[in-house]
Amino acid sequence: MATTIESEVDVVIVGAGPAGLMLATWLSHLNVRARIIDKRPSKIMTGQADGFQCRTLEILDSFGIDRVWKESNHMLEVCFWNPDKNGVIRRTGRTPDTPSGLSRFTECVLHQGRMERFFLDHLKENGDTIRVERPILPSELEIDTSKLEDPTAYPITVRLRHLTDEEATPSQGTGIPNGLFRSNITADDTEDLIKSSADSNRAGTDEIVHTKYLIGCDGAHSWVRKQLGFKMEGEHTEIIWGVLDVTPITDFPDIRVRCLIHSASAGSLMVIPRENRVVRLYIQLKEVSEGGGAVDRSKVTPGQILAAAQKIIAPYTLTYEQCDWFAAYQIAQRVADRVDLSERVFLAGDAVHTHSPKAGQGQNVSIQDSYNLGWKIGLVVRGQATLEILKTYAAERLQVAKDLIAFDRKFSKLFSGRPAKDVSDETGISLDEFRKVFHQGAVFAAGLSVDYGPNILVVKEDDGSVRCVPSLASKVPIGMRLASHKVVNQADALPIELQRLLPSDGRFRLIVFAGDISNPGIRARYDRLGVYLSSQAGVISTYTPQTAARDSVIEVLTVHSAKRHHVELQGLPEAFHPFDRTRGWDYWKVYADDESYHEGHGRVYENFGIDRDEGCIVVVRPDGYVAAVVKVDDTRSLEAYFARFMIRV
Amino acid sequence: MATTIESEVDVVIVGAGPAGLMLATWLSHLNVRARIIDKRPSKIMTGQADGFQCRTLEILDSFGIDRVWKESNHMLEVCFWNPDKNGVIRRTGRTPDTPSGLSRFTECVLHQGRMERFFLDHLKENGDTIRVERPILPSELEIDTSKLEDPTAYPITVRLRHLTDEEATPSQGTGIPNGLFRSNITADDTEDLIKSSADSNRAGTDEIVHTKYLIGCDGAHSWVRKQLGFKMEGEHTEIIWGVLDVTPITDFPDIRVRCLIHSASAGSLMVIPRENRVVRLYIQLKEVSEGGGAVDRSKVTPGQILAAAQKIIAPYTLTYEQCDWFAAYQIAQRVADRVDLSERVFLAGDAVHTHSPKAGQGQNVSIQDSYNLGWKIGLVVRGQATLEILKTYAAERLQVAKDLIAFDRKFSKLFSGRPAKDVSDETGISLDEFRKVFHQGAVFAAGLSVDYGPNILVVKEDDGSVRCVPSLASKVPIGMRLASHKVVNQADALPIELQRLLPSDGRFRLIVFAGDISNPGIRARYDRLGVYLSSQAGVISTYTPQTAARDSVIEVLTVHSAKRHHVELQGLPEAFHPFDRTRGWDYWKVYADDESYHEGHGRVYENFGIDRDEGCIVVVRPDGYVAAVVKVDDTRSLEAYFARFMIRV
Repeated sequence: MATTIESEVDVVIVGAGPAGLMLATWLSHLNVRARIIDKRPSKIMTGQADGFQCRTLEILDSFGIDRVWKESNHMLEVCFWNPDKNGVIRRTGRTPDTPSGLSRFTECVLHQGRMERFFLDHLKENGDTIRVERPILPSELEIDTSKLEDPTAYPITVRLRHLTDEEATPSQGTGIPNGLFRSNITADDTEDLIKSSADSNRAGTDEIVHTKYLIGCDGAHSWVRKQLGFKMEGEHTEIIWGVLDVTPITDFPDIRVRCLIHSASAGSLMVIPRENRVVRLYIQLKEVSEGGGAVDRSKVTPGQILAAAQKIIAPYTLTYEQCDWFAAYQIAQRVADRVDLSERVFLAGDAVHTHSPKAGQGQNVSIQDSYNLGWKIGLVVRGQATLEILKTYAAERLQVAKDLIAFDRKFSKLFSGRPAKDVSDETGISLDEFRKVFHQGAVFAAGLSVDYGPNILVVKEDDGSVRCVPSLASKVPIGMRLASHKVVNQADALPIELQRLLPSDGRFRLIVFAGDISNPGIRARYDRLGVYLSSQAGVISTYTPQTAARDSVIEVLTVHSAKRHHVELQGLPEAFHPFDRTRGWDYWKVYADDESYHEGHGRVYENFGIDRDEGCIVVVRPDGYVAAVVKVDDTRSLEAYFARFMIRV
Repeated sequence: MATTIESEVDVVIVGAGPAGLMLATWLSHLNVRARIIDKRPSKIMTGQADGFQCRTLEILDSFGIDRVWKESNHMLEVCFWNPDKNGVIRRTGRTPDTPSGLSRFTECVLHQGRMERFFLDHLKENGDTIRVERPILPSELEIDTSKLEDPTAYPITVRLRHLTDEEATPSQGTGIPNGLFRSNITADDTEDLIKSSADSNRAGTDEIVHTKYLIGCDGAHSWVRKQLGFKMEGEHTEIIWGVLDVTPITDFPDIRVRCLIHSASAGSLMVIPRENRVVRLYIQLKEVSEGGGAVDRSKVTPGQILAAAQKIIAPYTLTYEQCDWFAAYQIAQRVADRVDLSERVFLAGDAVHTHSPKAGQGQNVSIQDSYNLGWKIGLVVRGQATLEILKTYAAERLQVAKDLIAFDRKFSKLFSGRPAKDVSDETGISLDEFRKVFHQGAVFAAGLSVDYGPNILVVKEDDGSVRCVPSLASKVPIGMRLASHKVVNQADALPIELQRLLPSDGRFRLIVFAGDISNPGIRARYDRLGVYLSSQAGVISTYTPQTAARDSVIEVLTVHSAKRHHVELQGLPEAFHPFDRTRGWDYWKVYADDESYHEGHGRVYENFGIDRDEGCIVVVRPDGYVAAVVKVDDTRSLEAYFARFMIRV
């Protein structure tokens, strides 16, 4: 027998769906050595997830990925259709799908295969250092607990099996019929694949990888989760749903907006208008489920799903000539009991939470799980932060997973319910309540209600060492993502979204809302901060290697409230626009909260609740979430904050 | 000797600079068989043109090319620097570079090599039917005048020589020193290349191509123009300019905005901030030109250019470590006396007009020349329009070329002049006048003053057959490009720029400003128009093959002034949202001039000066220029307009 190859790598990611690809993207931007494996021979081509929240779009933009926003269908309006007193469906309400003022993006829809394509292309363009390796399955996992405290050790050993083509392709007959949804309670093919591999004379080769971190982004039936022995808690419902991606031929008036249709007695239907003239329909399959119990979803045909939709949407007609994809599924609502083992093995995405697809949350929360994790692992691997920060992952993301399931339970129940005929109809659901839950859920559904609690990375109030003063930026909730408004570049007059100044590159940022620096007193305070930030004892020097750029660990950005024309960039302290011997001064760090020539006034001080004279410093994490708010001259608090977890050079 | 290969193609384009690549792009979108050849072995890599006007950005956007806007530096502000009474330069004024309200774009800057890359990539993505062939030179041209009246004939024969690598690379010593600007009066290398090819035993092969149209996009020293015997009229100035693309190291405060600096006696300097931290400097070379007469520009060094800049910009310091490109040139201001021969051979771009680069016009006017020509050739080749429309090219573009040279003469003279010391200083130029000319030129410089005169394609007033009523859209100048404002899609609530509904695809468009169709009387008028447009006698049926899509020749778009929620798309006549048996109804043709959920109200009726009840039909050419404005019920004028040049099916 040939010797099994052994190697070391900082991170191994199992699963190249949205969660795994997001993590690989982060690690490639942070120049972390990582591998990502997937058991499937190719990425998915049709179907699956399709909804993109505002927050996900903000995150993608922070990596320079704008193709979802460009190629997707922007879904702007929601219509509610309900039975009238004669049982005929009528449009009873219209509302924006994304409340205005939340984000510079709105919800949009594009199938998951495109998102995976964009991630893969981006990984290639971004140095091509991390490639998805397929088809590969992990088959054994060992953890050396004696090495867990040493950040330079490789305590995890994982055996990887390179599958043959035959192993990687589920055989017809025993696998899942082509085109049917791999729902989160469909029997998974992982075990089959391993078994098939072991039995086959043509089994591929194995290799042994020693790694610092192993991340299970391997879906609802996560192999990693099973190795850890973690449990999924929750239940699944008996209602069967069908999903059709079709080019509809219909006289239904609202087929190009999102519709929530409750028929009198034929069930519910959701319309999700998609890219390329496609519309996704989620259809409650009354007839099929009438048999009760263990229905064989694999026998559901597109014709049955269409027939159910036609009954719900009557008196309007609905048919199609082109069908991209169809599926039948049951809803399971479950959360993992734990998401990490000793902060060395982590779970993200569907491995942590499964729920109904209709609120368009799954892919988003999955991407955001690994968006939360990536920079933390990156900073530890690069020796910039202590292992301690990895504990925040479970605290921050498990709460989000629980909130997600609670939201989904409420929403699904109301959407699946039969409309009450009147107030005395106690088994029916109230359509008024449904609308109320829908509206209340809009901020949640946009991904913008996430609020990380106080921890080593988030300081929500004066704790004696970090004198956090939330009132200095009264509309900037600490623990939530920093919102975006336009600011104007001091040097070139370009209006730019504040979030565009916060690319995902692993840096913490001090956003100095310096106040009106055309006022000499305020300017003097700002100049003193500049002197401190340039000093050897300051936070920049403390954590930045001498050979590295001054802004490579902690970046200082200024947003002042003076008129742009009343300030000259050249006079400002160097800390605010660092000088480089070959590239000259940095012209992209100082901004004015001022009127722009063509795009209006961003009014960021007003929108953030910051006094135009007093100002403040907003400390922002590498993922764009607000870590603390301190006074402009409170350099001690800056030192105290970073001393909690950063490693001095 | 081997037999020379002969072939036929609809169009041969000579020269793959911006004009040639724009034309190739148009023809690829129109599925016209075309070839594009260039004598150079590769596209340019650095230097040359860099300014992009609003209109050019609109045109690129109409082909789905958005990379210039994304990658370029947006140049938003202009500062004027002039000597004070002590002769020290001071900032004397600040103004937006692009006046607000002109366009959804603003002027931006990116080097020409990127633009050529985007065109090449776009050609590849768009079917890869037209590829730039290099290095190839045309060497002989024959025109069979007996075939000129037959649109299906190939009256032009051109011999093409495929160059060897040696032929295509100018030898050191006799050619142009590497890095020096190929100015429009630098001796061209065309003749050398042909000669070298003829002399060489390793000469490449020749081929003979028969074509319907030959387009010379081959620059200031156009071979095509020489074959036709056309003359360039105008003169060149004696002032020598230097140009430096550097990453500046300077304490000059306005290095990231456009600056027009007049020193007291050291000459003038223009600052053009570019992408990737680069700044382009245009510098008047006083010292070099002092020798007078025929200065050898090839001996100018970057050091000399920098020294001249340092004198002008003093007391500020200026130096650099990185230089991308440098050049020295003289300004020539010339226009060709003719731009076509029998509407079969055309010239475009620098082959027609040469001038100074400092106003950032050259690349733009060149692109717009062939943007004007491409669709006309396309429609004739496809048998949709008569040869007659090709006559409009010379009428429309020669005027633009003349306007350009007149603008350039005025601007260059004022910029090169020594500032007057006071009003009695008659040899000095008035800085007030300079600012005035600059401001007056802003709309011209944005490419938005182009106003095509009345011709077969443009009807500016009631001529008895086309009853054009300009007052129906009092702020829509006929003959100029249609401006853009946001409208809201009736079916899905998406706010979208009107110009995004006018992609460059060769279609004429009827934009039906239908008025308030929630009013029954106005709706009845709109319904009657719908019946007409669906009828066999209507303009759509007259010019659209039965097998083709109803909207493939003339597209009908509606912008109504009713509240969007007061209109149901499904009730509208089919002509306004055509039905397709496999793809269902068309949801992307009817729009409301209404408030959007997230992006405000476009107020297109108000901005276009259209009455919200009376409405009108705006006829738009395939290049986005307004052809006519007629009453909503004036179907006879529509018939009369298209009968002027369209060919019935």
